[in-house]
Amino acid sequence: MLSIVGIGPGGYDDMTVRAVNAIKNADVITGYKLYVDLVRDLTGGKEVFCTEMRGEVERCKKAAEFAISGKNVALISSGDAGIYGMAGLVLKILEDHPEVETEVIPGVSACQSGGAVLGAPLVHDFAVISLSNLLTPWSLIEKRLEAAASADFVIVLYNPGSHKRKDYLSRACDIMLRHKSPETVCGLVKNISRDGETSSITTLERLKSTPVDMLTTVFVGNSQTTVINGKMVTPRGYRI
Amino acid sequence: MLSIVGIGPGGYDDMTVRAVNAIKNADVITGYKLYVDLVRDLTGGKEVFCTEMRGEVERCKKAAEFAISGKNVALISSGDAGIYGMAGLVLKILEDHPEVETEVIPGVSACQSGGAVLGAPLVHDFAVISLSNLLTPWSLIEKRLEAAASADFVIVLYNPGSHKRKDYLSRACDIMLRHKSPETVCGLVKNISRDGETSSITTLERLKSTPVDMLTTVFVGNSQTTVINGKMVTPRGYRI
Repeated sequence: MLSIVGIGPGGYDDMTVRAVNAIKNADVITGYKLYVDLVRDLTGGKEVFCTEMRGEVERCKKAAEFAISGKNVALISSGDAGIYGMAGLVLKILEDHPEVETEVIPGVSACQSGGAVLGAPLVHDFAVISLSNLLTPWSLIEKRLEAAASADFVIVLYNPGSHKRKDYLSRACDIMLRHKSPETVCGLVKNISRDGETSSITTLERLKSTPVDMLTTVFVGNSQTTVINGKMVTPRGYRI
Repeated sequence: MLSIVGIGPGGYDDMTVRAVNAIKNADVITGYKLYVDLVRDLTGGKEVFCTEMRGEVERCKKAAEFAISGKNVALISSGDAGIYGMAGLVLKILEDHPEVETEVIPGVSACQSGGAVLGAPLVHDFAVISLSNLLTPWSLIEKRLEAAASADFVIVLYNPGSHKRKDYLSRACDIMLRHKSPETVCGLVKNISRDGETSSITTLERLKSTPVDMLTTVFVGNSQTTVINGKMVTPRGYRI
């Protein structure tokens, strides 16, 4: 059995009971070292195979090998293993091994944990877009930003910037500003549920020049999103 | 303290540790009766205030009253309280009571639990759209469907149909078919994690005439989404 486990933002409390049990019941734990370290309390005495950043293919192949050999494997993904996570890659790697049983165990993704820190930004239709162009052409990312902004979606941006992509958020804001007001309520959360967690609420105009990194998740409201007692809130439409 | 608790699809195993503890530590539990019943094992001996369907405003106001009076309240939402959930409504109701401490506890939403049942449909950019026009004009829903389809998002449809809205999914498919191939891989999951859970994989063309109800979640792939060993998988772009 290969369990592809989303562990959420990192703390034990934000894991589902099913994720905790899958890790406890596994023979082998595989994952990105940083994330495996987050669940180290649960992995005591087990075989552990970690890789560093960018080692996605290597660790998924290794997890598949362990599972093919008959071991119970928990492949750890931060957030939700099915949202920009390892679930798709592992299922592809196991294409020629339909005999291996797999399960995807969902976890709390950054759009949820970050949203909860900010308030309730995702209470209406939303789009999730990664600004990383490592695996996706920038032209497609631009097209998605434009489409989502034009239809007044709340937009969540994953991987909004890095050392090499310092101006990507600014470019994304320019595209969204073609359709969204400069006063659109936006939020940022960094290091969600970890030491040094910070969050702030701003406007789309100011977001354009806000520095971000790979550990930041960005929320861009729709035209109805507002600030209530310091929280970012998108209304659903109820009359009270 | 008012905890707005997402309990996930319904089973204890799919709740986060934080959600379990918030319910255990609350003085009062409020929520839609069906969802409160799902966590009945955790609510023993506590005060419980339930309303029936459509009682959202009433139960959120009641939860706010309890919190204003100094009680620890857990307001239960199925899935994630921040995704089409009660979080926004409660924060609005408490607008004039900034002294009441609130926390949103994320849970596994249907796009995640349903996605995990199907495989890994959400591994790339996606849009979440509710087809319910109770609180949203249908023209805006159409606009969002068109925009998301035109930019090749994976699309998740919540509330795809009901007795009164039998043809909404069909109409939504017509809009998406303007931009997406009739062969686009689609998936349906009904009664996620509950008795009678069923799932199926189909095409966008066939989805158009597939009956659905309020307990069904619908997934429409992007142009790269494929079927691997019976699972719906959207690739991220890794080379293996």
